[in-house]
Amino acid sequence: MHTKLTENVSPSRNTSTLILTLSKYPVIQTKLIPRTPSAYEPPMLIKSLLAQSLRFNPTREIIYRDLFRMDYFEFNKRVRRLANALTKVGINAGDTVAVLDWDSHRYLECFFAVPMMGAILHTVNVRLSPEQILYTIEHAEDSIILVHEDFLPIIEAVKDKITTTKRFIVLSDKVYGEAKAELSETSFDTLGEYESLLAEASESYDFQDFDENTWATTFYTTGTTGNPKGVYFSHRQLFLHTMGLMSLFTGYEAVPFSHQDVYMPITPLFHVHAWGFPLFATMLNNKQVYPGRYEPEMLLKLLLKEKVTFSHCVPTILGMLVNSPVAKQVDLSKWKVVIGGSALTRGLAKAALDLGINVSQGYGMSETAPVMSIVHLNDEQQNWNQEKQLDLRTKAGRIAPFVEMRLIDDAGEFLPHDGKTVGEIVTRGPWMTQGYFKDPENSEKLWQGGWLHTGDVASIGPDYYVSITDRVKDVIKTGGEWVPSLDIENIFSQIEGVAEVAVVGLPDERWGERPYAIVVAKPEFANKLNDEVIRNYLDAEVEAGKIKKWYVPDRIVFVPEIPKTSVGKLDKKKIRVEMRDLLLG
Amino acid sequence: MHTKLTENVSPSRNTSTLILTLSKYPVIQTKLIPRTPSAYEPPMLIKSLLAQSLRFNPTREIIYRDLFRMDYFEFNKRVRRLANALTKVGINAGDTVAVLDWDSHRYLECFFAVPMMGAILHTVNVRLSPEQILYTIEHAEDSIILVHEDFLPIIEAVKDKITTTKRFIVLSDKVYGEAKAELSETSFDTLGEYESLLAEASESYDFQDFDENTWATTFYTTGTTGNPKGVYFSHRQLFLHTMGLMSLFTGYEAVPFSHQDVYMPITPLFHVHAWGFPLFATMLNNKQVYPGRYEPEMLLKLLLKEKVTFSHCVPTILGMLVNSPVAKQVDLSKWKVVIGGSALTRGLAKAALDLGINVSQGYGMSETAPVMSIVHLNDEQQNWNQEKQLDLRTKAGRIAPFVEMRLIDDAGEFLPHDGKTVGEIVTRGPWMTQGYFKDPENSEKLWQGGWLHTGDVASIGPDYYVSITDRVKDVIKTGGEWVPSLDIENIFSQIEGVAEVAVVGLPDERWGERPYAIVVAKPEFANKLNDEVIRNYLDAEVEAGKIKKWYVPDRIVFVPEIPKTSVGKLDKKKIRVEMRDLLLG
Repeated sequence: MHTKLTENVSPSRNTSTLILTLSKYPVIQTKLIPRTPSAYEPPMLIKSLLAQSLRFNPTREIIYRDLFRMDYFEFNKRVRRLANALTKVGINAGDTVAVLDWDSHRYLECFFAVPMMGAILHTVNVRLSPEQILYTIEHAEDSIILVHEDFLPIIEAVKDKITTTKRFIVLSDKVYGEAKAELSETSFDTLGEYESLLAEASESYDFQDFDENTWATTFYTTGTTGNPKGVYFSHRQLFLHTMGLMSLFTGYEAVPFSHQDVYMPITPLFHVHAWGFPLFATMLNNKQVYPGRYEPEMLLKLLLKEKVTFSHCVPTILGMLVNSPVAKQVDLSKWKVVIGGSALTRGLAKAALDLGINVSQGYGMSETAPVMSIVHLNDEQQNWNQEKQLDLRTKAGRIAPFVEMRLIDDAGEFLPHDGKTVGEIVTRGPWMTQGYFKDPENSEKLWQGGWLHTGDVASIGPDYYVSITDRVKDVIKTGGEWVPSLDIENIFSQIEGVAEVAVVGLPDERWGERPYAIVVAKPEFANKLNDEVIRNYLDAEVEAGKIKKWYVPDRIVFVPEIPKTSVGKLDKKKIRVEMRDLLLG
Repeated sequence: MHTKLTENVSPSRNTSTLILTLSKYPVIQTKLIPRTPSAYEPPMLIKSLLAQSLRFNPTREIIYRDLFRMDYFEFNKRVRRLANALTKVGINAGDTVAVLDWDSHRYLECFFAVPMMGAILHTVNVRLSPEQILYTIEHAEDSIILVHEDFLPIIEAVKDKITTTKRFIVLSDKVYGEAKAELSETSFDTLGEYESLLAEASESYDFQDFDENTWATTFYTTGTTGNPKGVYFSHRQLFLHTMGLMSLFTGYEAVPFSHQDVYMPITPLFHVHAWGFPLFATMLNNKQVYPGRYEPEMLLKLLLKEKVTFSHCVPTILGMLVNSPVAKQVDLSKWKVVIGGSALTRGLAKAALDLGINVSQGYGMSETAPVMSIVHLNDEQQNWNQEKQLDLRTKAGRIAPFVEMRLIDDAGEFLPHDGKTVGEIVTRGPWMTQGYFKDPENSEKLWQGGWLHTGDVASIGPDYYVSITDRVKDVIKTGGEWVPSLDIENIFSQIEGVAEVAVVGLPDERWGERPYAIVVAKPEFANKLNDEVIRNYLDAEVEAGKIKKWYVPDRIVFVPEIPKTSVGKLDKKKIRVEMRDLLLG
């Protein structure tokens, strides 16, 4: 397996001075030039990004809702105050600092102060269940927990089971401006409130140099089974990811991002560092707006008031904003949005473009820091009409700078990048997680032969464009071919009367697997839509060369409802089990 | 000395597996997260920059005068052909490849193919004397020499003294298009002509991974005394320098550079990698124009024909172009120029701005790869009038991303960045040479206490703006104060009748040193300009608070001519000797 993959990686040695930085690559040295003993070559640390924020336009502002605003001079001082405040309560380099907060200036301060101290920032996913949050706190061995008042109930629910720390700092919006009010009571001891602790702390702190491979952040990714898995990133990785964003957005102008843009994240800061943009925008000295919670009207108001020009979010949020009654009354033609997280539909992309919003899709994972690809219209494509551009804007995009991607088949052999052949995406690059925290088994599954296995099935074009068609576990393997279930579902969805559809693979003695479809008919088509109607449609598509003959499902089953996961995605695992019981059992 | 400087650097060990990549910084590891054995984190190599050139707009062109043009697909193939051609004639990783060429597509191919093979590119300064060129070839132990026909006389003159190689490849412009003609004869054996060797070579080559600290380039810098000194840069350094340019020019838009700009270098490619722009423009897929020789009319024609929008050059070249009769007849308002090498005068900057040229100055050295600072107008300064902007545009600029600069006094103590206090600039950053090749003595003088000593005297403002006032060896140290000779000379040059002036320091028992001036009067002022006239002017300036009292020279000597160096700069060393003999001897 993986016979063609490169094997030039050796494990690092666990000794105190050599760890993580031993060269994994051959050093060429026929003509050795020594380094002068006193010469200095700095490590690439997160502090190098922050240092830039004082140089160019430091009077630009960082804003939290209508509650708090400061310039970059103040921000730099507050980062130092936070480092001193954490030091004072006993946090040292190597400790892990957990944060549960809305998207705020406080969170941005933690993004810098915690890793710059040499500590690890654990950005807690507040959407997990209290039990899962407890699991991640315990698993990451957090040394302190910074928790917003709104999330105190979570901590109250699990506090007796937290063994890793008794240190808590409370974050509150009630300490700002007109919002001032009494803080919520807690049933446990805390070290105090964030702003008070900062006010008491010194604004000077000498952040030390350390090895650039020191871990900076960790957070947990959840699958459909098993416990959350902790990914982690080093200073070097986050530095280079920022350089990747710089190249992609200011260099190639995938979605043009200039230092004059006003940036507002609408992807939570706990979610893969808000895709890395807060570090990038801080380095570039952009005006930044942190919106707290995601209420459509409030977001639109903030967007207009602060003249926001650049955001990123999942399709659901974009849909909420585009469909908000307020959206029709305002000019959104200066707003640029990067979409990720799940697939951007053609309809939503069109609705956004019709409002003047520059919308493009990107592709990434928690494991990849996250950017792997993003839609980028080159010279020629800029001149295409909207319809043709939509074909591109709803793809996973062009492979990002410094990221390598390949497609592999079942045997781990590389497949051609012809825009047609589908295979599993494997990737490598300067900012991929090096494993899952304390989980060697899953780490080894993730990394095989020097490539990170994404579990996504796609084709890649000679133009470096990636089109995702499936998850590996959902792809249907029939007669040595991979049939992308998404492609068949797309064709079904174009048949008049089809409300919903799911296509899964079931075991077949001769072909390995064969596709099966379950369909929900629209009520008014209940009597008209049947097996024959659908087969006629599919046969015509086969005839027209649009799909291959073996894409046509062996059986089409009509059902009143299709099983879904808690977040509304098709639950293919459950569908497979139910279909097997029904048809083959 | 240097009590405040950081001393966290330890020498690397010269063993075959650990060299250069041992961590020089403490590794924080209370909470150790192991790297998965098969995980891959790529080294930052020059090949990572080239890889991007195929992704975005690979159909853009690279052009050599009116002789040769190709797109990026072709360029990538030719880089591979060159690597194969060099391999075939016995060049291996670790060897050094010398190039003597005009600015051409061939040179750009060497920029990539040679370091990507693991070899070191030696960019030979063709303006040195044949003896100095011989010295650098021997000192760098070059394994092969690629030489343009026009520079064959240099090699003919010294060929019998070259001991390090007998391998020569001839580069010629006579092989392209209508220029085709017989190649020049050589009195020594060569391996053939560049294009023929490429034509015979395969266009596929698998560039291997190796340690990012592998040396990639070397070239020689000449001072007023001693042999040329060899600086050298690693793949990591050139990668990060490119990221620095990306941040500076596309991110902060110091001088706005977009992927849509048409780039033409007018600083030789042998001169500090043409300031790093060819690597940067190649990564960004810009259309690139290589002009060969520098003849003003030809440059302007090429500039207009290919719609060049971005260049860099020394003031002399800008002056030639601006003063060319052709310049008045054409629209240069879309042309942006970065100036470096020597000081941009206010007059030249104004003349360029009046033609619509966006002109800004940068500061760098051979030792610093080179970019250390560049003029950048922030939000506020963009709105200033031209006069006020000129004050900035003729400064050395704002400190570049990731570069650190400090001012030190004689004792090595740090001085304040108040925009007034002057001291020697010391610097550190991710792309500084780590010493001089085979020259430990000068290397140790360059690097002291972890800081690279530039030998330049300047003030630095709280806004990170750098104003250079002197070379350390020319500064006048009087009564514990550093008097910038440039400032006094500037005041002299404003006195009616002064044609030329030089101010130097001579020993003084009481003050250490005192300033002395020599002046050339304009012929028509020969009888009017005297000591008294000048002293009255200076006294008025002192009174007005424009200069300090101790800036007024002890003696003003009128001479018919001021000693200059071969490149036309004031020869302060000679002036000091002559003045001492004349006045104190």
